Amino acid sequence: MNKIDKVKTIIIEKPIKLDCGKTISNFPLAYETYGKLNENKDNAILAFHALSGDQFVTDINPITNKSGWWSHLVGPNKAVDTNKFFVICANVIGGCMGSYGPSSIDTKTNKNIGTNFPVITINDMVNVQYNLLDFFKIDKLYSVMGGSMGGMQVLQFVANFPNKTRTALPIACTASHSAQNIALNELGRQAIMADANWKKGSYLNYENSPDKGLSVARMAAHITYLSQKGLQEKFGRKLQKRDDLNFSFDADFQIESYLRHQGSAFVDRFDANSYLYITRAMDYFDLVKEYNGNLSDAFKNSKVKFFIISFTSDWLYPTSENKEIVIALNAAGADVGFIEIVSDKGHDSFLLEVPEFLKSVKNFLDANY
Amino acid sequence: MNKIDKVKTIIIEKPIKLDCGKTISNFPLAYETYGKLNENKDNAILAFHALSGDQFVTDINPITNKSGWWSHLVGPNKAVDTNKFFVICANVIGGCMGSYGPSSIDTKTNKNIGTNFPVITINDMVNVQYNLLDFFKIDKLYSVMGGSMGGMQVLQFVANFPNKTRTALPIACTASHSAQNIALNELGRQAIMADANWKKGSYLNYENSPDKGLSVARMAAHITYLSQKGLQEKFGRKLQKRDDLNFSFDADFQIESYLRHQGSAFVDRFDANSYLYITRAMDYFDLVKEYNGNLSDAFKNSKVKFFIISFTSDWLYPTSENKEIVIALNAAGADVGFIEIVSDKGHDSFLLEVPEFLKSVKNFLDANY
Repeated sequence: MNKIDKVKTIIIEKPIKLDCGKTISNFPLAYETYGKLNENKDNAILAFHALSGDQFVTDINPITNKSGWWSHLVGPNKAVDTNKFFVICANVIGGCMGSYGPSSIDTKTNKNIGTNFPVITINDMVNVQYNLLDFFKIDKLYSVMGGSMGGMQVLQFVANFPNKTRTALPIACTASHSAQNIALNELGRQAIMADANWKKGSYLNYENSPDKGLSVARMAAHITYLSQKGLQEKFGRKLQKRDDLNFSFDADFQIESYLRHQGSAFVDRFDANSYLYITRAMDYFDLVKEYNGNLSDAFKNSKVKFFIISFTSDWLYPTSENKEIVIALNAAGADVGFIEIVSDKGHDSFLLEVPEFLKSVKNFLDANY
Repeated sequence: MNKIDKVKTIIIEKPIKLDCGKTISNFPLAYETYGKLNENKDNAILAFHALSGDQFVTDINPITNKSGWWSHLVGPNKAVDTNKFFVICANVIGGCMGSYGPSSIDTKTNKNIGTNFPVITINDMVNVQYNLLDFFKIDKLYSVMGGSMGGMQVLQFVANFPNKTRTALPIACTASHSAQNIALNELGRQAIMADANWKKGSYLNYENSPDKGLSVARMAAHITYLSQKGLQEKFGRKLQKRDDLNFSFDADFQIESYLRHQGSAFVDRFDANSYLYITRAMDYFDLVKEYNGNLSDAFKNSKVKFFIISFTSDWLYPTSENKEIVIALNAAGADVGFIEIVSDKGHDSFLLEVPEFLKSVKNFLDANY
C-alpha cells in the first residue's frame, strides 16, 4: 500500500447508526472534486465509485499516478463536462483511499482496525456520503451517477433522499445482488482469507499483506468484467513472446500474462480487508427486500428523472437485471429512460471509451440541465 | 488424499513420445470396466472423463464412496446400457486415481514426482489410453464418448485413430480452448500456486498439501459449471440457517456455504498438482491449430458416425463452439447429428439427470448398434 498524504477529507462528527447496529462518529470521509460549484449551487453531481474504484474520478490519480477510472467520461468538454458541472466523489467507507475503513488506525490501540471494522452496507455508504451535501451547502444535487456498485449507491441514494437530486444515472447495476454475484464475491474473499499472510485480517500490524490471495481475487473478478467474445477477440490463443507452447506453468498465453499483471498491479493500490468489506456490502444489497419485495415502493412519488444504462455483453449485471429497475420505476410512475448499449467489452464497458455510452450520458445530462 | 489400493491398472511398457518431446514408458494406467465384452468384441465403449473425473464412471466409487460421475447415464438398463455395452474408462495420465501422474513415486528418488512430471496434452492422454484396445484385444470400439475435457479426448481420438471406433459422442466441449477458459483455468492454477503449502509442487514430500488453494480453485470452477439462472433459482439470496444477515464474513448465504462445501470436499479426493497438469492439457488443446487452421481436416474421410450434444445454459463450452465442430464435420462430409438440449443447469448438465440428454444418448447408441 502507498501512503496516503494528499487526500482531502471531511470529518463526519455526528453519530451515524450503521445497518449492523453499531454507531460510528468522528471519522474521515475522503473526497475529490472536479469543476466548480456555481453560485446557485445547482450544478453538482455526486459520482459513486465501484468496488475497486476511489474518489479520483478523472485526471491523474495522485496515489497510483494513473488516469482516474472515469477519465473517458468526466472532464472539461467531456460527456460529464466539468466546465459546466461540479463533480464530487467520495471514497466509500470501508475503502482504503483515506476514508474510514479496516486499514484505519484505531486510536485506542494504535493498531489497524482490521476485521474489527463493522460490516457495512451500501445504505451505510450512502448515508455517510450524504454529509457531503451539508459540507458543500448544496440543497439539491443536479445528478447522482455511478456504475456497478456505484449504480447500487445511486439507487439507494434516491430511495433514501428522494428530494436531494434532480436526476439519477444508475449504470450496469442491479437492485438485488444475484446468487452468481454473491458466489463470485465469496470466491474472492476465500482467496484472500486462504492466504497465510491474511492472519485473520491483522496483517497490517505485521507489516505484511495477503498479496497472493488478493491477486487471485482480482484475477477472478477481472475475468468477470470482460466478455467471452471480447476475450476471444483481444487475446484468443495468442502466445506470450513465444513461437510455440512452452510445456510449463509459465504464462504461455497472453491472457495468462495479462491476468497476472492485473492481479499484481491491484495489490499495489488496494487493501485486502477493504476488498472483503466492500464485496460484503455488495452482497448484502437488496433494495427489493428493503421495500418488502416491491422495488417500485423505493421510488414512490419520486420526481427524480432517471436514465438507466446497460451493456449487451455484461453478464455480471445483465440487461435483464437493469430492466427490472426500469420496470419498477415505471410501476412507480417515475420519469425513466433506458438504453442498452451494444458492446463486446462486458461489464467493463462502463469504464471504457465506448462512444455510444459517452454520448448517451452527455445527451441526458445536457438535455435536463 | 485417500490411499489408492483397489484400482485396476495396466502397465504401459512400450515407450510413448509425449508432445513436450519427452518419452515415458513402463507406467501405470488405471481403468475400470462395466458390463461384459461380447464374443465379437464389438460392443465396447471407451468413455473419457472430465477435469475432476476418474475411471469410476458409475456405481459406487470405491475411493470416495460416492456415486460415479455418470451414474445417471451408465448402468444396466440406463441410457448407456451395461447389459448391452462394455464400458471402459481410464484415469487420464496426469491424474491422481492410480494412473501415472505428479503424485506417482519416482522410483529413482523414492519421492513424489511433483512438478517434475512432464506437461501433458489431450493428445498424450488419448495416445496412452489407446493401449486399452490392445489390452482388451478390441479391434474397433463401438463408441467413444465424453463431456467437457472428455469430449476433447473424443475428438482427438477420432482424429488420431479414425478406424478404431464406429461412433463418437463429443458432449459440451470445444475443438479449441477459448481465451476465457484459459483464463479461468489459469485462475485455478494461480490459487493453488499461491498457497504457501504448495512448495513449488513438492508438498507431498512434506506430507502436506495446498488444500486452501485447491479449494479456491474448485470453488471458482464450480461457479462456471452452473448457470446464472440455475444459481438464482436454486439459491437466490436464501440465508443459511439464519433469519437475517449476520454482518460477518461467515457463510450468510446458502450459496456461500454450498461453495465452501464444494471446495473442501474436493481436496479430500483430488491432488493439487494433478489439477495443474490437467487444466494445462485443456488449455493446450487446439485441434484447429493441429490441423493448420482447418478443423475439417481432422475428420477427412472419416467413417465414424458422430453425435454432438450441447446445452443451452452452458457458457463454458457454449453451443456456438459445439456447432463449430458440427460445421467442420459437415465440411468433411462426415455423418453427424447434433442436438442442443434446453437446460438451466449450465455446463454441469452433462453430469446431471437431464431427461432429454439421457434419452438422446440412448437413442443414438441403440439406433446405431
